[in-house]
Amino acid sequence: MSFFSSRWVDVPESLTEVPGGGLPQGFRAAGVACGLKADGGADLGLIVSDAPQTTSAARFTRSGVLAAPVLVTKERTRLDAIRVVAANSGNANAATGNRGLDEAARMQGAAAMAGRVESDQVAVCSTGVIGVQLDGRKVVRGVLAASSELGSDDAAFSAAIMTTDAFEKRVALELELSGGLVRISAQAKGAGMIQPAFATMLCFVQTDAALEAATADLLLGVCVKRSFDRISVDGQLSTNDTVILQASGASGVAVAPQSADEIAFGQALDALLRQLALLIVKDGEGAARVGRVVVTGGDARGVPAVARAIANSPLVKTALNGADPNWGRIAQSIGMALPYSSPLLFDIAIEGVPVAVGGQAAEHDTAALAEAVTRDEVEYAVELPGEGVEEEVFFSDLGHSYVTINAEYTT
Amino acid sequence: MSFFSSRWVDVPESLTEVPGGGLPQGFRAAGVACGLKADGGADLGLIVSDAPQTTSAARFTRSGVLAAPVLVTKERTRLDAIRVVAANSGNANAATGNRGLDEAARMQGAAAMAGRVESDQVAVCSTGVIGVQLDGRKVVRGVLAASSELGSDDAAFSAAIMTTDAFEKRVALELELSGGLVRISAQAKGAGMIQPAFATMLCFVQTDAALEAATADLLLGVCVKRSFDRISVDGQLSTNDTVILQASGASGVAVAPQSADEIAFGQALDALLRQLALLIVKDGEGAARVGRVVVTGGDARGVPAVARAIANSPLVKTALNGADPNWGRIAQSIGMALPYSSPLLFDIAIEGVPVAVGGQAAEHDTAALAEAVTRDEVEYAVELPGEGVEEEVFFSDLGHSYVTINAEYTT
Repeated sequence: MSFFSSRWVDVPESLTEVPGGGLPQGFRAAGVACGLKADGGADLGLIVSDAPQTTSAARFTRSGVLAAPVLVTKERTRLDAIRVVAANSGNANAATGNRGLDEAARMQGAAAMAGRVESDQVAVCSTGVIGVQLDGRKVVRGVLAASSELGSDDAAFSAAIMTTDAFEKRVALELELSGGLVRISAQAKGAGMIQPAFATMLCFVQTDAALEAATADLLLGVCVKRSFDRISVDGQLSTNDTVILQASGASGVAVAPQSADEIAFGQALDALLRQLALLIVKDGEGAARVGRVVVTGGDARGVPAVARAIANSPLVKTALNGADPNWGRIAQSIGMALPYSSPLLFDIAIEGVPVAVGGQAAEHDTAALAEAVTRDEVEYAVELPGEGVEEEVFFSDLGHSYVTINAEYTT
Repeated sequence: MSFFSSRWVDVPESLTEVPGGGLPQGFRAAGVACGLKADGGADLGLIVSDAPQTTSAARFTRSGVLAAPVLVTKERTRLDAIRVVAANSGNANAATGNRGLDEAARMQGAAAMAGRVESDQVAVCSTGVIGVQLDGRKVVRGVLAASSELGSDDAAFSAAIMTTDAFEKRVALELELSGGLVRISAQAKGAGMIQPAFATMLCFVQTDAALEAATADLLLGVCVKRSFDRISVDGQLSTNDTVILQASGASGVAVAPQSADEIAFGQALDALLRQLALLIVKDGEGAARVGRVVVTGGDARGVPAVARAIANSPLVKTALNGADPNWGRIAQSIGMALPYSSPLLFDIAIEGVPVAVGGQAAEHDTAALAEAVTRDEVEYAVELPGEGVEEEVFFSDLGHSYVTINAEYTT
C-alpha cells in the first residue's frame, strides 16, 4: 500500500515515494536492543547528521509534567542545530526528578560522543512507562552499540522508538525543487496518550535540502499545527512528545526563504506530517476507524471547543467503532462544549449527508449513510451559527482493543 | 444491602432507611408502559403531590443543547411550586426543534389534567435517544393510564425512568427532627452520558417536611454541588439532566430557616444525594469500580482542572478497571491539566499509600497497594504546591462493558 493512503492529505505532484527507502544524504541511523524493553526488542535509536552545517527545528509537548529528556533538550540543546537524536523506548524518564535529569544528560553526553559532536547539538527523547527511573548504564551501552551500526537504513531506528504501535510509521520521499531532487525521510511513533496541543508522540524528519534554521522552524511550526496538533486518540496529552526536523544540506539544493521552493517544501512537509499524524490516529490503540470532524461558523472560542468535544467524546468514539451514524451524540457534545447557549441551531452532516439541520433531524437516506460509516474513514461536518472559523480534528474510535491494551496490561 | 454503602457518605444518626419503602405523606406515584421503549418496558412515570402548599426547587443541565422538556420546565413552570412531575424514558425529546417543544408542552398539559393542577405546576423530564421526535399521543395515553394507578409505592415510577441503568436507584428514609419524624424518598436514573456541571441525570426527591421554597432551593443547591456536580462516568454532559426536590409539608413538621432542623435536613439530603450520585457512578455503563480523586493545594483554577482531567482520563479509568495502581497515568493527567507549569512537585497517594512525592516515585509496599486497588472503591489523593483549594470527583472505570453498551447497540 502507498504511504499516502488518506483522502484528507493533499499530495503535491512533485513529491514521490522512494520504494526502497533510505535516509537523505548526510544522515545515518541505527537501532539496537539495550534491555529497557522487557521483551528484549529494539529500544535505543540513534540518528546522526554528519554535515556540520545541519540546521534543525523542534516542537515539544506543553504538558506541565515534562519528561526529563524534554527538559534537557529544551534547555541544553541548540534547537536550530541538532546534529544527533538519541531516543529510547521502554521508559519515558518522566516524573523521575533530579536523578531522571541526570540520566537524560548522561544519555545526551553518550550520544554526543557517539556522533562526535558537542552535547548541545544532541536531542534526547524517551517514551514508555512513566515514573520509573531510567537505567542509564543500559542506555549508554545501547548508544555505543548503535554508534557502530550507523547506516543509511532507518528501519532499526524506527523499530527502536515503537511502544504499543501496531505498525511502523516510516517513509522516504523525493521532492523535485527548482535546484534538483531532495530527499525527505521520517520516522514516527505513537498510538496512545495522544492528544493535540500539539505533538504527543515522537516524530523525526530528515532532509538533505539546505534550509536556514529559521525556515525549518517556520515550516515545522505551520505543518505541526495542521497535523500533530489536530489529532486525538484518547484526549491524553503526553509528557514526552517531541518533533524534530533536521536538514543536512548535503544535496546542495537550497530552499530559499519566501521562494516557490519554500512553498513546495512546505507542501511536501505538510503532506508528510498529516499522513504520519493520520497513521498515529489509525494506530490509536486498537482503533478500527479514523474520524475527521470539521466545525465551521461559530467563533474562535467555540469552534475548537466543539471540535475537541466531539473528537474526545467516548460516546462519539464508540459510535464510530460500532459504525453507528448516531448524530444525537454529536449534538450532545456540541451542547457540552457550548454551555448556556441554547437554543443552538446547528447543522450536522456525516459523510456529506445532512442528518440534522437547524438543530433537529433532517430526512436522509439512512441505508446509504449506514453503509458509508462502515468505511475506514468517516467525516463529520458541523456548522454553527456565526461568522466562519474552521477547525478540523482527526480522531480514532474507541473499541474493545483500547480497553484490552490499557486495562489488562500494566504499562 | 443497605442503601448507604459508600464510605464516602456521612450518614447522620437521625437518618434511617425505611425497609418497606413508600412515598412521604401527600405524594402518589405511578409508572406505566406507553410504547416509547421498543422492549415494551415501563417508560412513563408520574409523581403527584396532593398538597396545595407544596414547595419545590430544581436544577438543570447547563448544556447548550437543551432538551425540549428542560426548556419547557425552565421557562413555563413555577420551579418553587412544582406539584406534578411527568417523566418518560425511551426518548430524550432533545434536538427536536419546535415540534419537540410542542410535544413537551402537550405532555405538561396532560400531566396537569392528571394531577388536577395548573400547567405551570408541572415539571416534565425525558431521557433516551436524542434527535427523534417524541410521539406525544403515546405520552398522553401514558399519562392518563398512570393517573389511574397513582399510589404510595414508587417502584413503578422508578422503573419508568430507567434506560441503560443496570439497577434501580431508589430509597425511602426517615429523619428525626425537633418537631417529629419526616420522610424523604428519592428516585434517580443515570448510567451513561454522565458528567458534572452538574446534574446529568434525573433525580426526584420528595419529603413531607414543610420547607419554605427558599430553603428547598438553598439546600438542593448546596447538596447538588457536593453530589451530582462531583461525578463523571464518561465526561459527557447530557441535554436533559434534571433534579427536583418537592416538599409537601403534609407531616406538619416544619424545617425553619437557619434552625438546627435545617442543618439536620441538609445533612440528610447531602447523604441521600451523595449516595445516589455514587450509585450512578457505580452503574456507569459497565463499571466495575468507583474511584474518588481528591485534589488539594494549587489554586482555584488548577485544582478542579486536575481533578476533572484525572476523573475523565481513559488511561486512568482503564487502569482502575484493570486494578492497576499506575500513578504514571495520574501524573500525565496532572501535566495535561496544568500546561506550561513544569517542573511540578506533585504528591500522589493511592488508598492512603504515597506512591509519588515531589514529582517522582516514592518507595511503597507494592503488594499491599496491589491488593487495595482490587476493591470496589479506590481513592486517589493528589497534592499540588500551593495554598489549599480542595476538589473531589467521583468517577467510574472504563471497561469492556462500556464499549459493548455504546458501540454494539444503537442508542
